[in-house]
Amino acid sequence: MTDSPLIIFQPSGRQGRVQTGITLLDAARQLGVDVDSVCGGRQTCGKCKVIVERGEFVKYGIQSAEAHVTSASADESDYFRRHPSKLSTGGRLSCVACITDDVVITVPPESQQRKQVIGKSAGTRPIEIDPILHQYYVEVEPHALGERRGDWERLQEALAREWHLQHLTIDIAALRQLTNALKAGKHKVTVTVHGGENQEPIPNPQSPIPNHTSGRVLDVRGGFHEGLYGLAIDVGSTTIAAHLIDLTTGETLATEAAMNPQVSFGEDLMSRVSYVMMNGNDGLRKLTESVIGTLNTLIEKAAKRAKIAVNEIYEAVIVGNTVMHALLLGIDPTELGAAPFTLSTHAPIDVKASELGLRLHPAANVHLPALEAGHVGSDNLGVLIAEAPERQDAMTLLIDIGTNAEIVLGNRNGLWSCSSPTGPAFEGGQISHGQRAAPGAIERVRINYVTGEPRFKVIGKDEWSDTLPDADIGATGICGSGIIEVVAELFRAGLLRSDGRFIENQEARTKSQEEINPQSSIPNTRSYMRWHGPKAEYVLATAAQSATGKDIVITQDDVRNIQLAKAALHAGCKLLMLGMGVSKVDKIVLAGAFGSYIDPLHAMVLGLIPDCDLATVVAVGNAAGDGARIALLNKTRRAESAQLARDVNYIETAIDPNFQQEFIGAMHLPHMTDPYPTLQALGALPAKSANEPDGRSARRERRRERQEKF
Amino acid sequence: MTDSPLIIFQPSGRQGRVQTGITLLDAARQLGVDVDSVCGGRQTCGKCKVIVERGEFVKYGIQSAEAHVTSASADESDYFRRHPSKLSTGGRLSCVACITDDVVITVPPESQQRKQVIGKSAGTRPIEIDPILHQYYVEVEPHALGERRGDWERLQEALAREWHLQHLTIDIAALRQLTNALKAGKHKVTVTVHGGENQEPIPNPQSPIPNHTSGRVLDVRGGFHEGLYGLAIDVGSTTIAAHLIDLTTGETLATEAAMNPQVSFGEDLMSRVSYVMMNGNDGLRKLTESVIGTLNTLIEKAAKRAKIAVNEIYEAVIVGNTVMHALLLGIDPTELGAAPFTLSTHAPIDVKASELGLRLHPAANVHLPALEAGHVGSDNLGVLIAEAPERQDAMTLLIDIGTNAEIVLGNRNGLWSCSSPTGPAFEGGQISHGQRAAPGAIERVRINYVTGEPRFKVIGKDEWSDTLPDADIGATGICGSGIIEVVAELFRAGLLRSDGRFIENQEARTKSQEEINPQSSIPNTRSYMRWHGPKAEYVLATAAQSATGKDIVITQDDVRNIQLAKAALHAGCKLLMLGMGVSKVDKIVLAGAFGSYIDPLHAMVLGLIPDCDLATVVAVGNAAGDGARIALLNKTRRAESAQLARDVNYIETAIDPNFQQEFIGAMHLPHMTDPYPTLQALGALPAKSANEPDGRSARRERRRERQEKF
Repeated sequence: MTDSPLIIFQPSGRQGRVQTGITLLDAARQLGVDVDSVCGGRQTCGKCKVIVERGEFVKYGIQSAEAHVTSASADESDYFRRHPSKLSTGGRLSCVACITDDVVITVPPESQQRKQVIGKSAGTRPIEIDPILHQYYVEVEPHALGERRGDWERLQEALAREWHLQHLTIDIAALRQLTNALKAGKHKVTVTVHGGENQEPIPNPQSPIPNHTSGRVLDVRGGFHEGLYGLAIDVGSTTIAAHLIDLTTGETLATEAAMNPQVSFGEDLMSRVSYVMMNGNDGLRKLTESVIGTLNTLIEKAAKRAKIAVNEIYEAVIVGNTVMHALLLGIDPTELGAAPFTLSTHAPIDVKASELGLRLHPAANVHLPALEAGHVGSDNLGVLIAEAPERQDAMTLLIDIGTNAEIVLGNRNGLWSCSSPTGPAFEGGQISHGQRAAPGAIERVRINYVTGEPRFKVIGKDEWSDTLPDADIGATGICGSGIIEVVAELFRAGLLRSDGRFIENQEARTKSQEEINPQSSIPNTRSYMRWHGPKAEYVLATAAQSATGKDIVITQDDVRNIQLAKAALHAGCKLLMLGMGVSKVDKIVLAGAFGSYIDPLHAMVLGLIPDCDLATVVAVGNAAGDGARIALLNKTRRAESAQLARDVNYIETAIDPNFQQEFIGAMHLPHMTDPYPTLQALGALPAKSANEPDGRSARRERRRERQEKF
Repeated sequence: MTDSPLIIFQPSGRQGRVQTGITLLDAARQLGVDVDSVCGGRQTCGKCKVIVERGEFVKYGIQSAEAHVTSASADESDYFRRHPSKLSTGGRLSCVACITDDVVITVPPESQQRKQVIGKSAGTRPIEIDPILHQYYVEVEPHALGERRGDWERLQEALAREWHLQHLTIDIAALRQLTNALKAGKHKVTVTVHGGENQEPIPNPQSPIPNHTSGRVLDVRGGFHEGLYGLAIDVGSTTIAAHLIDLTTGETLATEAAMNPQVSFGEDLMSRVSYVMMNGNDGLRKLTESVIGTLNTLIEKAAKRAKIAVNEIYEAVIVGNTVMHALLLGIDPTELGAAPFTLSTHAPIDVKASELGLRLHPAANVHLPALEAGHVGSDNLGVLIAEAPERQDAMTLLIDIGTNAEIVLGNRNGLWSCSSPTGPAFEGGQISHGQRAAPGAIERVRINYVTGEPRFKVIGKDEWSDTLPDADIGATGICGSGIIEVVAELFRAGLLRSDGRFIENQEARTKSQEEINPQSSIPNTRSYMRWHGPKAEYVLATAAQSATGKDIVITQDDVRNIQLAKAALHAGCKLLMLGMGVSKVDKIVLAGAFGSYIDPLHAMVLGLIPDCDLATVVAVGNAAGDGARIALLNKTRRAESAQLARDVNYIETAIDPNFQQEFIGAMHLPHMTDPYPTLQALGALPAKSANEPDGRSARRERRRERQEKF
């Protein structure tokens, strides 16, 4: 036995000599080892459980088989009897076990305060769990007859004494609970604090009191109470998704999604803006109420699924595009419908859930991250929060495709963003047989380069069309990813010219085909191509294969609409590259549902995205929702994001003279001027000689383009 | 003409030389003359109107009959054409009229920013109008295509540029209005800010920017809009009164009052507390909703009477006792019903009106001043705000009588407060024919010291009973002031002994009577006194004079209950005097409706209040409401009051051993031990020899008292 035994903490390896008799928790704090504790040493919360290792640790010079800590107290034994799941060999509550001699202690992951969870986004970067809310268990002095302090004053003193929390305010909802919570808990209460710093009890009496920001008490419950939940919500134009998250573990307990009910007021954002313009405040109220109502339903479902009470949800982070952001808050979005696309504010907003009509805890806060610009909303900021391009060297292009495509380009040296008016074509709009991604929609397409014959896959079937009886296919239309693939495949198969027109000259077509596949016979496209005068259409699914009993075709206009959409997207990317002064990107991140479905190769063949190593093109799914989750779980990243939104350089495509120029240039497949070495290396493009106009024909092409005035 | 003409401002007399060509407003600011301006020099608000004097001002050395200012601009002429009521001879807008030569300017009272209104309280001290809210008229830069700032960011910049307001936040209600207000006002808006400092535009570019606190934007309206109203509300146990006040002029535009609907749940506070104890949260909710509902009705009525919109009311200050305070906020008051009388908080509370269910402007704030202690609420603090004893040398005793009497004693050297359990006797409770102050209640009583015959006055009649036919009197009972007078008069008439018992010994009575009025004949009291064995009752009103057809009498028990009440009050006063270490007070202030009705002489005869020059006993009516009004109109006094509440020393009568002792001693009329030189000088007491027991009989008295166990 020694007066200053050696203590070694695993897995950090931190070690040092401490005074005999102090608790393992105090020893951990003295050595800067991260051990959680909520109850402040009252043997109640079990968060500080550690494993006292037995055996010889020769490398540390410890050669005793004894665990050199004091025996369990009655309260500690009682704790483990009440929580048998927490008991493991050597398990002790570090707030009560005291060191008697040299010892090795393992801090299990669940006992670390700064736990990490892995994000679902592409980078799978761990998120450090450090939310803006915390719960504290404190014992409040009873009120003595004749003294002046009220319950709140004594609670403040307890929070200052035990947790160093200063300058707190209390919500009226918590004040209403306070007296009865103190009574029910016999002066011991669990307090939920929003924004209050210090998460640790006083480290040791010698340390200077750290500087604390003010916080707000949202809730007071009698006794020890665990239950601190939050919501990460992505309000999309079409879909609303809510993730219910345990703010102490980072675990997603439930995810609920629903159609955005505003669809019934207008499919796309602009028609909803028009609805408000036509119907005034009443229309605005209806749109707001519909989305709030749906959110409340999702919240109730999620809470039920996770078996928690809705009033244990104290925080929600909501991201969305600028129009959805306005409609959610009850702000008239009319100004967003026309130049100069004025936002009410681009700053992050914190507002009480009750003021929005959201049914969470009555004092719950809703955080809406900053907006970047009139067309670039907090959903895009969510992508930035999740992908963190500002922390990377790689020149990253982030693309989130919807009716507008939000695009961000950059790395740690700077970020540029813009919104590009791609229109609804990528979502199936303005396409003859276009439809939403739903069962029956054609989502994958391959065309036989020799015969011109298509095969395809519909959503809801695992097999391709050529392995199913026609009657079993039931194709209903073509969704976004299918549209991209069919146009890219038509081009690759030599059925489309680089300018987007179907090849009317069979000879030219044959020649091109021969070059791609010299061994092929002359293809017979008569079954798949139909000509109506100068205009053609391609039959993707026959009447027999379709659920409608009619052919599903791609028309010349469909191809033109895809060209317009992809040109807008490409022009946006190009503007940003000009802004950043780069000619090539290192990495392309496709965000959103659409990004997950499209095939990078086909997207590149279309010229939808600039040239890039295909291996570095990644789809990250709902990165906006991931960003909301990160802003919910990590207050530092949340705070950074407000600055991030201000730091992103924004290009207004509507007024940038380069945009029109790039847009026109980008109509060609894949692109008239940009090199696509990646595609050429892969042989993914039709031979240039056949489809790319030479000098003379190029001029003719352009003249014809002007005549067709797109 | 001179390069630095002399300008003299009236009535302040401030003068100085300024640069030729600057506006009169700038000149005023340079010389520190208080001239109001809301619109920041846009010739819109008219607040800065001054009178340009003509004529010779020999004493200033000005001998020209010309007004040496520039002529009115088209905008200024337009302003006066639109507001003909504002035009007076020499009237000019000081923001536009520029000085050309020596001139004398009068600033009319309505153009002074720091206007004062006279309070209704005893001191009739002027209140400086400096509310926590202000309206600002600003011009916001239009949004340029491609720029990033939103409406809120540009509004912040305008408020910083024109009014030096920094670190503002905006309420969601205002954010919802912002875009359309800017559109409606063509970028000119009137902004209502809560808590934001500086009320003046930038004085001149050379002055250092003053230090500003943060504020909150509550409302934004298009164009120039005047309308900034607040409510001062006193929620009493019985009556609720709301005063609607113009926060720019201090004028009370409307006052509405109603019964507290909680009366139907329990007449006194303790029975309402019991109701909550019996009915739990449901009971609490009902009590809260009833008072909020009544407040909303009063607010609507007041707004209608004042012809303003409810959503132009941005602030309410509400005072009340501690139980009403809790019930208004929806806080369980159970703890206030028993020792140790724990408050949820004694701090001032600011809460959104909407969170309490009050229908004002949706972003309106409700301020509830601090509570002093478990029994001493913000109504008492309101009295302190209004009376400001802490600023005076006179040792002042403030008494607010209700079911409990709140008492404060002190001066600038310190304040002591307590709550004394007077019980309901002073309000007519526990008195055989007691009733509330309402038409028909006997409020004034005089007894003929010779005959013992009473005469009285009922509420609602101007005449005394002896000048009316019996059938026209219609007495229904006795209210508090009547009870005090009848007991004091019975004592003065020698019908009551000092110990409170009716005089059974006619001989002694006769003797006393002779001493008071040696010329009187022996009175015949047989018509007015009735004896039931040892107990007697005094007939104040006959069956013929009463509305009930029965005699209205004062019984021995009634007298005893008044003795208990007055003893409690006296003991409270005595405790405070002990606390302050004084034996005499300089001034007594009676607050509340009851205080206005009782006669100081009778109160002193009863021993209700300690000895004091009767000329310094003043009734100030609803001083609590006055205090609320001051806290509404002057933010400095509001801030001071929070400190005042903390500074008042509180004595808990329930545990102070001196209280019981003083209480027992104070049962006698006027008091067993205290000298009342004032009364003796006035001959207002019966002769001491007859009624004051001598040593031997005093001991007998006390024994008898103990036997009667009161």
